[in-house]
Amino acid sequence: MLSKSQISLLTSLQHKKFRRESGLFLVEGYKSIIEFANSPYCIQTIYHTPGIAPKLLNLSRKINFQEISLNELQKISVLKNPADAIAAVNIPEWAGFSDQDLKNKFTLVLDGVQDPGNMGTIIRTADWFGITNLVCSEDTVDAYNPKVVQATMGSLARMNISYTDLKEFLRSAKLPVYGALLNGQSIYKTNFGTEGLVVMGNEGNGIRPEIEALISNAVTIPRIGGAESLNVAIATAIFCSEVAGKSAK
Amino acid sequence: MLSKSQISLLTSLQHKKFRRESGLFLVEGYKSIIEFANSPYCIQTIYHTPGIAPKLLNLSRKINFQEISLNELQKISVLKNPADAIAAVNIPEWAGFSDQDLKNKFTLVLDGVQDPGNMGTIIRTADWFGITNLVCSEDTVDAYNPKVVQATMGSLARMNISYTDLKEFLRSAKLPVYGALLNGQSIYKTNFGTEGLVVMGNEGNGIRPEIEALISNAVTIPRIGGAESLNVAIATAIFCSEVAGKSAK
Repeated sequence: MLSKSQISLLTSLQHKKFRRESGLFLVEGYKSIIEFANSPYCIQTIYHTPGIAPKLLNLSRKINFQEISLNELQKISVLKNPADAIAAVNIPEWAGFSDQDLKNKFTLVLDGVQDPGNMGTIIRTADWFGITNLVCSEDTVDAYNPKVVQATMGSLARMNISYTDLKEFLRSAKLPVYGALLNGQSIYKTNFGTEGLVVMGNEGNGIRPEIEALISNAVTIPRIGGAESLNVAIATAIFCSEVAGKSAK
Repeated sequence: MLSKSQISLLTSLQHKKFRRESGLFLVEGYKSIIEFANSPYCIQTIYHTPGIAPKLLNLSRKINFQEISLNELQKISVLKNPADAIAAVNIPEWAGFSDQDLKNKFTLVLDGVQDPGNMGTIIRTADWFGITNLVCSEDTVDAYNPKVVQATMGSLARMNISYTDLKEFLRSAKLPVYGALLNGQSIYKTNFGTEGLVVMGNEGNGIRPEIEALISNAVTIPRIGGAESLNVAIATAIFCSEVAGKSAK
């Protein structure tokens, strides 16, 4: 059974301000929780309904459990139909990426992506293609927003994420900076090599001018038909496919 | 001003049953309406708020207009913040695709895609890559669902869509049938040639076994990292990029 103060803390985690204050975020559903339990993330407590308990006993790490009713789960969940369990997980303290962290791989850089669904899909897609570094502008949607966590379907557990001043980050980067822009070289003619940063812009406005100025290689997904633009998660997926997918040839 | 029966008809179009009965669907927002006005679609009436009237005068075709208040627009809109106008548009009577319609191009085939957001994004992405033929199983989400229409951002106006028995359609097809499956040839090693059908499956269950049996070329987006699956709109985008995007080299 949950105390009033537990319910109040857990529901407050839907808001960024309280996630920051408590250093906690929520992960919903057994399948996703397992991904975090098998990652470097530190789980504070798993709140689970009675039915799910046996499945959770297989976890290799010692984790705090608390059994709650379905009614209580519904109170702390952000989902319409919460499934079976919800976990409070520590937000990692992330020092940022060193040059070494960025070497011999591709890193996604998001300049002001706003939609939680897009952000979650970007993380899930990057994870599919083995891209695990993500650098975000300070105004990019919080990766620990419950809607983002949900949309990543567990992939968040494998991602290294840094929120930082993109201008400073890109200025000091020692790698090619590719940017998804409208008037660049065709993505199909671009030789991406084996390492680099790939900058994707905001849903409505694209990449900010001051960030665009720091891009060394403007790259475009050529338009053949009539659509005015591509969704940012879709464009990011095509970049992931081109820079990382092909290496699996 | 809208009559009670007009409000009742227009709000009923949120449901597939009433779209079928009336042969009408809704398009929201000036920008999307313009795309339909410049397409073979037949617009029955554009309901617009006072401010948007001058912009609509530039339409090249003679179209029925009716000025309504913002309050009335809110009543008939499915959006939280309806913008400026909403149009009732005729659902085209579509006889299906002839062999000629399918020749020298790629056609997307959807086997049970359920999510309106995915469907809309698939249509928008296909349109970007110049793919305008879409064949859907009878249980695929209705392309004239207001959420789908919204997510296509006008691209629906350029798409030829047929809902049909996929088994019969694929059996009689005279083209290679590519299917997005888990254990196929790498998409990066597949030579797609210049024409074919590309089958994408349902969000949770993929392609049905009886449809899979009709696929001539199983194709896989190789997984490099840890994600269990790709979102269907993301996978479709990568297929569009590979089969159609490259022709723009």
